[in-house]
Amino acid sequence: MNFEESPMFRGWAAPFRAELSSQDLEVEGELPADLVGSFYRVQPDFLYPPTHANDVPFNGDGHVSLFRFTPGHVDFRCRYVRTQRFKAQQAARKALFGTYRNRFTDDPSVEHLSGGTANTNLIYHAGRLFAMKEDSPPVQIDPHTLETLDDYYTFDGKLQSLTFTAHPKIDPITGEMVGFGYEARGNGTDDVAFYGTDASGKVNWEAWIKVPYVGMLHDFALTTNHVALLVIPYTADLERMRQGHIHFAWDSSLPTWLGVMRRGGDGSDLRWYKGPLRCATHVMNAYEVGSQLFIDMDMAPGSQFPFVPSLHEVFDPTEAHGRITRLKVDLAEPAETYEMEVMYGEVCVLPRIDERYWSLPYNVGFAPVMDFTKPLDGARLSVTGLVINTWARFDHDQRKVTTYSCDNVSSLQECCFVPRSRTAREGAGYLIGIVNRYLEDRCDLLVLDAEHLDAGPLATVRLPHRLRNGIHTHWVPDWVLPVR
Amino acid sequence: MNFEESPMFRGWAAPFRAELSSQDLEVEGELPADLVGSFYRVQPDFLYPPTHANDVPFNGDGHVSLFRFTPGHVDFRCRYVRTQRFKAQQAARKALFGTYRNRFTDDPSVEHLSGGTANTNLIYHAGRLFAMKEDSPPVQIDPHTLETLDDYYTFDGKLQSLTFTAHPKIDPITGEMVGFGYEARGNGTDDVAFYGTDASGKVNWEAWIKVPYVGMLHDFALTTNHVALLVIPYTADLERMRQGHIHFAWDSSLPTWLGVMRRGGDGSDLRWYKGPLRCATHVMNAYEVGSQLFIDMDMAPGSQFPFVPSLHEVFDPTEAHGRITRLKVDLAEPAETYEMEVMYGEVCVLPRIDERYWSLPYNVGFAPVMDFTKPLDGARLSVTGLVINTWARFDHDQRKVTTYSCDNVSSLQECCFVPRSRTAREGAGYLIGIVNRYLEDRCDLLVLDAEHLDAGPLATVRLPHRLRNGIHTHWVPDWVLPVR
Repeated sequence: MNFEESPMFRGWAAPFRAELSSQDLEVEGELPADLVGSFYRVQPDFLYPPTHANDVPFNGDGHVSLFRFTPGHVDFRCRYVRTQRFKAQQAARKALFGTYRNRFTDDPSVEHLSGGTANTNLIYHAGRLFAMKEDSPPVQIDPHTLETLDDYYTFDGKLQSLTFTAHPKIDPITGEMVGFGYEARGNGTDDVAFYGTDASGKVNWEAWIKVPYVGMLHDFALTTNHVALLVIPYTADLERMRQGHIHFAWDSSLPTWLGVMRRGGDGSDLRWYKGPLRCATHVMNAYEVGSQLFIDMDMAPGSQFPFVPSLHEVFDPTEAHGRITRLKVDLAEPAETYEMEVMYGEVCVLPRIDERYWSLPYNVGFAPVMDFTKPLDGARLSVTGLVINTWARFDHDQRKVTTYSCDNVSSLQECCFVPRSRTAREGAGYLIGIVNRYLEDRCDLLVLDAEHLDAGPLATVRLPHRLRNGIHTHWVPDWVLPVR
Repeated sequence: MNFEESPMFRGWAAPFRAELSSQDLEVEGELPADLVGSFYRVQPDFLYPPTHANDVPFNGDGHVSLFRFTPGHVDFRCRYVRTQRFKAQQAARKALFGTYRNRFTDDPSVEHLSGGTANTNLIYHAGRLFAMKEDSPPVQIDPHTLETLDDYYTFDGKLQSLTFTAHPKIDPITGEMVGFGYEARGNGTDDVAFYGTDASGKVNWEAWIKVPYVGMLHDFALTTNHVALLVIPYTADLERMRQGHIHFAWDSSLPTWLGVMRRGGDGSDLRWYKGPLRCATHVMNAYEVGSQLFIDMDMAPGSQFPFVPSLHEVFDPTEAHGRITRLKVDLAEPAETYEMEVMYGEVCVLPRIDERYWSLPYNVGFAPVMDFTKPLDGARLSVTGLVINTWARFDHDQRKVTTYSCDNVSSLQECCFVPRSRTAREGAGYLIGIVNRYLEDRCDLLVLDAEHLDAGPLATVRLPHRLRNGIHTHWVPDWVLPVR
């Protein structure tokens, strides 16, 4: 196929494919003097058209952006991650890897290469910046130049799992980074391996478990003493892959399972709590109080990705509406199910927090929201068919929601919270992220006061070009990584 | 000022400011297998907003594009030229040079630096690629990476002129490159110095002359044995510069003067032929037959640049309409004026030829044309206020005009002829250049059969972003510079 054949790749959704650098992006308004650090984001961006018509947007090559904030200035660059896959395809000048996470559809010449695209998320830990895709090990990139340093990072050979999550988390108390790999012994396997690395990056924990069924495990929950996983029925089945289908299919006949176990243990204490059919990919945050565990996720009744096949029904956009939902288990109780409370009515995706509170009791969350009272003017929709026109702040103590909405010819990408200082109170700082300006085929980066979203942007940083809809973003403050 | 304050810098005309690289631009249609080589272009692109509100688009920093054609593939990159001016402003993170070619308005800190922007044209000669601006020496850049190699190239110290034209020409018989500098002893001086360099790049001719008045000398004519210059009344006056005006003003009280002299001589044979008031910046081609010299230029009755002040009248867009006009002198005759013949009715700019015929009798020219019967739909105009919607081929023997017109929501930039082979007949090959897609804020590169412009593009090479209106373009075939 070529790009023009699919609406997935036309107009705003067309791959951008360029690598670029800009000094001093134009700024409207005033950049806060204490906004100093590095804002990373990654978008899937196919270098070459997919080989299979059933391929999905999430299979694009990882294309990382860096906005470097110094007082009064923002410099920009974006680069493809030089994954093993990217380098092979770049040299061949065509796609060699087949449809989404299906090695049966790859060209035989790439059989022994990693198929990872590094297109989902970034994290900076122990002096290393990683670009990540959950089907493969992290890729280490240079935090200043975005040059690829290691296309298959295995934590000094200690990563035995063939995969590693795109959502590792850093314990703010210990400085430890915790993550996991699923389908850890290969596509379709029911093995999950957890890993911890200490503040210097050395692996200090490994534990292997089994899941009730093989489903997408995009994110996980970290608390002071526990980890938790929610198995949702984007199921992976080798037989379907052999038939040429993408990695996942939505099987609405299955329940969800929440697995909870101790950090640092061998996994033998793992308990599974059953729940109803739900789709929930991201954890806003999780924490424990005594024997009680609380896990906040955006949760929808049905499949949230129209391009992933559903086995039993037609995709229903209203079933895809996710809301922040608090899952609760009490480890001291014998219950076999988890409890659920829908915390807010807002339909949202991609929740974030003040990450100084990762794993800890917290009060403030953020998320892009679909405000259906302010529909987009025109037919250009985001790749998922959902139009994000609002960023919301959720103050859990008052269950208060404060919002910023863009105009109705624009839409918003993921938002990211930036603390005002190392010691600022929770949620005091800035909310930043990309806005798509459809009429101008361009993006801006917005800077809002995270405590006054409704006051509108403090500063608007103009890009002369479009950025495709990215997946996740990551802020590294100047006190962690001094800007050059 | 900031960019938003001036319509010169808004919308399509906004500076692009990014440096980028793209592998394998998307291609619609079929790239000709014999189109192998390097297509260079340069656009003025302000890195920082001008310091003076009266500044003009031509003062932007030189930003070079390279389309590298290999069989079936087009790779792209664009880079700023690292001029002395660019580097100083990049380090200061603001403009330090003042209004257009007026050193009195510069910051004192840059007094001893070249103010050249390298934003006008490129030429490849004797293994070197030059980016050029007529107020300063050439800047040598790497033909593969576009990295700047020498920010002040003086032909081994032989260039005594402080300036060098952006329109040197290569004699296809001898391989010699001929050029000149005007205001050669500094702003406002009436000195012109001609230079020839042999096929190895060594200076083999220098001659100094005086002009009747100090006016813009943007281009010149080269024939087998002669050079010619047309002095037009974009006059340069130090007193006006001291008052903060841009370098030039249009003085319609003055005539034009055509100067002709022998190549290789000391300039003492120089003869001046008077002509009526005209604006003519570019030479399509020139040649001699016996004692007769023919010089084909696009010529208009009045000023062609609305942003250059006129001393005696208000700018009149209809007076700016240029038409291909043949100037003629017979060196064997005592006449004191030159003859003129308007060859075609088409209103055009930026004429080009099959440059294998530079300086020689020729039959085929090309130029962007304003077809007023096909106006642009919408208000987005090119920076000069003139909308180019057509490329024309002029076959002089039959005075035949063949055209390609783009749709009415696009406009065309300069076109460039590419010979099909080293030995192809004149005008057999491709016409290539950039088309602005206003509705998509994007450009394409078009490839047409130069002998069948009316058949439309053979191939359309898609860019994911806008390129600002460039000035000149230059094709270097694979047999001159092998593509990597």
